[in-house]
Amino acid sequence: MPSEIEERRKYYAAIGKKNLAPLWEVLHGLVTPEPVHRVQPAIWRYDDIRDDIMASGELITAKEAERRVLILENPGMPGESKITTSLYAGLQLILPGEVAPAHRHTQSALRFVVEGAGAYTAVDGERTTMHPGDFVITPNWTWHDHGNDSDEPMVWLDGLDIPVVGFFGASFAEKWGEDRQPISRPEGDSLARYGQGLLPDGYARRSHTSPVFSYPYDRTREALETMRRREEWDAAQGLKLSYVNPVNGDFAIPTMGTFMQLLPAGFAGVPYRATDATVFSVVEGRGTVEIGEQRFDFGPRDHFVAPSWSWYRFEAAEDCVIFSFSDRPIQQKLDLWREQRGNA
Amino acid sequence: MPSEIEERRKYYAAIGKKNLAPLWEVLHGLVTPEPVHRVQPAIWRYDDIRDDIMASGELITAKEAERRVLILENPGMPGESKITTSLYAGLQLILPGEVAPAHRHTQSALRFVVEGAGAYTAVDGERTTMHPGDFVITPNWTWHDHGNDSDEPMVWLDGLDIPVVGFFGASFAEKWGEDRQPISRPEGDSLARYGQGLLPDGYARRSHTSPVFSYPYDRTREALETMRRREEWDAAQGLKLSYVNPVNGDFAIPTMGTFMQLLPAGFAGVPYRATDATVFSVVEGRGTVEIGEQRFDFGPRDHFVAPSWSWYRFEAAEDCVIFSFSDRPIQQKLDLWREQRGNA
Amino acid sequence: MPSEIEERRKYYAAIGKKNLAPLWEVLHGLVTPEPVHRVQPAIWRYDDIRDDIMASGELITAKEAERRVLILENPGMPGESKITTSLYAGLQLILPGEVAPAHRHTQSALRFVVEGAGAYTAVDGERTTMHPGDFVITPNWTWHDHGNDSDEPMVWLDGLDIPVVGFFGASFAEKWGEDRQPISRPEGDSLARYGQGLLPDGYARRSHTSPVFSYPYDRTREALETMRRREEWDAAQGLKLSYVNPVNGDFAIPTMGTFMQLLPAGFAGVPYRATDATVFSVVEGRGTVEIGEQRFDFGPRDHFVAPSWSWYRFEAAEDCVIFSFSDRPIQQKLDLWREQRGNA
Amino acid sequence: MPSEIEERRKYYAAIGKKNLAPLWEVLHGLVTPEPVHRVQPAIWRYDDIRDDIMASGELITAKEAERRVLILENPGMPGESKITTSLYAGLQLILPGEVAPAHRHTQSALRFVVEGAGAYTAVDGERTTMHPGDFVITPNWTWHDHGNDSDEPMVWLDGLDIPVVGFFGASFAEKWGEDRQPISRPEGDSLARYGQGLLPDGYARRSHTSPVFSYPYDRTREALETMRRREEWDAAQGLKLSYVNPVNGDFAIPTMGTFMQLLPAGFAGVPYRATDATVFSVVEGRGTVEIGEQRFDFGPRDHFVAPSWSWYRFEAAEDCVIFSFSDRPIQQKLDLWREQRGNA
Repeated sequence: MPSEIEERRKYYAAIGKKNLAPLWEVLHGLVTPEPVHRVQPAIWRYDDIRDDIMASGELITAKEAERRVLILENPGMPGESKITTSLYAGLQLILPGEVAPAHRHTQSALRFVVEGAGAYTAVDGERTTMHPGDFVITPNWTWHDHGNDSDEPMVWLDGLDIPVVGFFGASFAEKWGEDRQPISRPEGDSLARYGQGLLPDGYARRSHTSPVFSYPYDRTREALETMRRREEWDAAQGLKLSYVNPVNGDFAIPTMGTFMQLLPAGFAGVPYRATDATVFSVVEGRGTVEIGEQRFDFGPRDHFVAPSWSWYRFEAAEDCVIFSFSDRPIQQKLDLWREQRGNA
Repeated sequence: MPSEIEERRKYYAAIGKKNLAPLWEVLHGLVTPEPVHRVQPAIWRYDDIRDDIMASGELITAKEAERRVLILENPGMPGESKITTSLYAGLQLILPGEVAPAHRHTQSALRFVVEGAGAYTAVDGERTTMHPGDFVITPNWTWHDHGNDSDEPMVWLDGLDIPVVGFFGASFAEKWGEDRQPISRPEGDSLARYGQGLLPDGYARRSHTSPVFSYPYDRTREALETMRRREEWDAAQGLKLSYVNPVNGDFAIPTMGTFMQLLPAGFAGVPYRATDATVFSVVEGRGTVEIGEQRFDFGPRDHFVAPSWSWYRFEAAEDCVIFSFSDRPIQQKLDLWREQRGNA
Repeated sequence: MPSEIEERRKYYAAIGKKNLAPLWEVLHGLVTPEPVHRVQPAIWRYDDIRDDIMASGELITAKEAERRVLILENPGMPGESKITTSLYAGLQLILPGEVAPAHRHTQSALRFVVEGAGAYTAVDGERTTMHPGDFVITPNWTWHDHGNDSDEPMVWLDGLDIPVVGFFGASFAEKWGEDRQPISRPEGDSLARYGQGLLPDGYARRSHTSPVFSYPYDRTREALETMRRREEWDAAQGLKLSYVNPVNGDFAIPTMGTFMQLLPAGFAGVPYRATDATVFSVVEGRGTVEIGEQRFDFGPRDHFVAPSWSWYRFEAAEDCVIFSFSDRPIQQKLDLWREQRGNA
Repeated sequence: MPSEIEERRKYYAAIGKKNLAPLWEVLHGLVTPEPVHRVQPAIWRYDDIRDDIMASGELITAKEAERRVLILENPGMPGESKITTSLYAGLQLILPGEVAPAHRHTQSALRFVVEGAGAYTAVDGERTTMHPGDFVITPNWTWHDHGNDSDEPMVWLDGLDIPVVGFFGASFAEKWGEDRQPISRPEGDSLARYGQGLLPDGYARRSHTSPVFSYPYDRTREALETMRRREEWDAAQGLKLSYVNPVNGDFAIPTMGTFMQLLPAGFAGVPYRATDATVFSVVEGRGTVEIGEQRFDFGPRDHFVAPSWSWYRFEAAEDCVIFSFSDRPIQQKLDLWREQRGNA
């Protein structure tokens, strides 16, 4: 046998020079019976990190930073600027009077407001004023900038598909050249035009991303309150909605599914897992989530992540409203997505 | 030649017995260079007919009538219960305390509230209270009933695809057996669930009709006011929106396109024509429309019809808000729809 | 009561002048519990009518006729140039050396070759030579002409959506000005380009109609022979396939579904009905079909029609191959289509 | 300044313990102005590696190997079992009498036959016999096995989305338990049923992958010969076709676009680049390709790879027929794909 091993080593070395490698030595690690990855469950409690976020405001100017963001790095992939294998998440701080200059890139971004009110995001010539719980999109390859004309700091969750775009070798980016792009559309125009059950006659879509780029929290919250009266709860997820593109009923962003869910006080969910590792941002309420072997208590403004195919289970001490995002739209388009519910 | 004519006559008679007919004698009438039809322009001014509508409330009970409706019959097709070749329109009266009993049919219906407030339509276990300008759908083959619990009469426009369903030989209808179907969903549930930029996670569509069955006027009106600030007016149609199914971005009803448009005070449109004969219901404002050789002044609650491929042109003395419907969704699906704008 | 009747008569007369009519007097006939129409079952046996078809070749020149076609008129709708409420069918004769001049119209047409071989149809700059059993499309608003360069007469079935286009008021037609349009593409180009599991990179569809306009019978027949080895027979329809548009997998023509089915020798089907009245053209084999109360023996080149929602049932004495067409694509797009299978 | 640097270091260390990292230190490497990756242009000439492939047949049994494949590893990513960032490619050898046992996995695979004839692939109960130039799919999560009943070795190109499935954490795999799955459908059934311009009436798709799993070369080659008569050549790509799923007209596999192109003798293309790194397998003809700074002569059975956004340019000494695949379907679904043509 040693001679056989030796023979194979020689062969592998020889073909290696020709950029060939034996599949049979690595197949078991490439095509695995279940998902294999380095993503770990983790929580970022807002109380623990708020001071660090605010400290970044003293440490570095908005100008210098371009975007002053603390990346939520998955503890299983330190130094990789990722919260899951495919997604980036960070908490962005913008102080009164600051701007984050206009640029565009092929990465899609979502903003979910965590603290503060009155800063704005401008997309494609239209500004939207941001409030806690608002979900705002800066679509792939559209000019966008942010500014804070209020008198308090604002913090929002940034969710981007940076690893996806990098993986496919498709990153492009440009700066506008000035801090703010010109405003050509009144505030609320996109929501009125596309988000009220109507579309301009003859509207032709230009991308897969929703033309509505701001989904205000008051509207979402009110929808949840109306719906809960029907008392139909998913055993694992309570009442879970996805934000949709009104032009086609698909996810609002082609690369990232975004969701809002309500767990009623006293909810004790069954275990659940899916192949889309998911990032959660708590808006209201206190509860507990078990992810894999870990158990996290959570409250408002906390963030946590559940890895792909890892069981997780919710309990809600109070009515909980939780925003989340994942790469599910991609997985569904590619026939890769699976989910499973366990027993109570 | 007479003998040739005679010979043909004999031949035609002989083959006629075998259910054969010569195309060459009729081709010119079947495949015409431009649309040929019997639809005429017409207007029904509300002031002229309101007394007749109210009189129907004395003449016949709701019970007896099942639906107490005056059909808007096109003057070019008397006795055919049609306002265009493919569409039915009528004005329905429901008095305080009355009900229109629950039934379902394969005909799709739209309701557009003209007068009164506080009556309801129930669809598939959910009630919606109706106000002027509200657009309500009773989808194909869903149980629906109406009732008026208010203390004033209500009148709404009924638009149905009755001629379409008849043409295709696909009419089915059933009665529920009782006046009112049981209510299983709270009011506002459908709008919350499907009409706020969200969809329940895992939602699977069951039909081509919008699951939102009530599009309140205040929401539509507010959208128009926001949009008008952009000052982008179509030369013929002003600012024209179509009601959409949020599940797929298509028309709200698969057989009937429904639209709301705003013509700003002073608007003088260019001529326009399209192959979809269109029924208009004025909500607000006074103006004039020229259709073919006719010129009609119109005001709130008036109804008029523009035939297929007939030029029409709007002028608005005041801000006008006009609802309309046509068979455009069908024509577009079949590659039949055409439109044309003329010169000012 | 007489006075009440009188009162209503007066009322009806008065409102009639205002183009209003009482729905309650006609509702029962408009929204019926089951489909109501005048279409009757009928058969046209080729042996009975071939002489009449050939006689048309002597009676009238191709030039004079533009298209020399005998319409298959439904006995329930004499003089209406229809085989069902929504469809036109005819048998077209083209003699050696003749041409049917180039034109285009918004009506879509299918050609199904019944007798003869070697004539051609030219569509949009490409000719296809026709053989028995071939299914050829002349799409909505594309230039087309026909010619017979062979030395025998050719007869084909014409199926058109003439009543549909008329019903929607959307007929447009133009003549090319010369008998033959110029040929710019080699024969077979469309089939190679779109019909072999491939599409040109970057192909953008321009209409809902298949870009493949000729589906040769030998290919269809061979597919049926391969498939039958799996011995999976629908209890009513045997092995039934629909012709599809390879660009979207939908029906080949947006207004008319086209089908080919194989009934194996000895097949005794269960009763079947659907809301799409269907026209059948027998290609091979002898059998029997019961439609409603009637029973027809059929053989090759015979044509028959089954009305909407009328039960029909097949028996096959030999292997039977039968082409058919109906308005099913429209009904499915509008959520109107229903089918039902009965017991053996 | 040193104190500021020191201060930041401390801050970074402190927040690092909380799984936070400063975006501003890494942003330039995450969101790049143009694609950044490690993929290099490379060629594998068949003459150089055929002996190595055959030697693998002596070195290791099919049984032992499960799949006896030499991975084509990109020289820029040694040891990563990838030919591009997102795709895997290998050359698989199967000797007479051998089998590659039945299994299934969520990875999609394409097989493109390079040498030999008469081996088979079985998918979901149906076998297909393979010949040079045939393109065969083993779809996501379908049982498949291979065997060689011929008397010569067969070599084919394996293309898989292994890195994609791994990236999204969605790998699942199972073994059937026996070498061969049972055969329940006759050979040719899928092609007859779905690949001839027809679909079984009532067919409901179950996945995004084409139900046709074998696209024979003779059919593709004949289509190219017919099409070339039209003499319409893309300046960069000659005549390039994509394999499509006949059920929806989309790419045959949702994760990998597959293409066949013809470059006529004498073709001298303009430079071209796109964001989808592409793997090429030459079927017929000799020519040259410049990729980035490199220039490769190629002939039949050679394989080469062009990185994302790297210019490449073809010259054809003879008629060349070239198969290729890339991740373009994913990029297009995500609005990430770009292409550019240069000047001659």
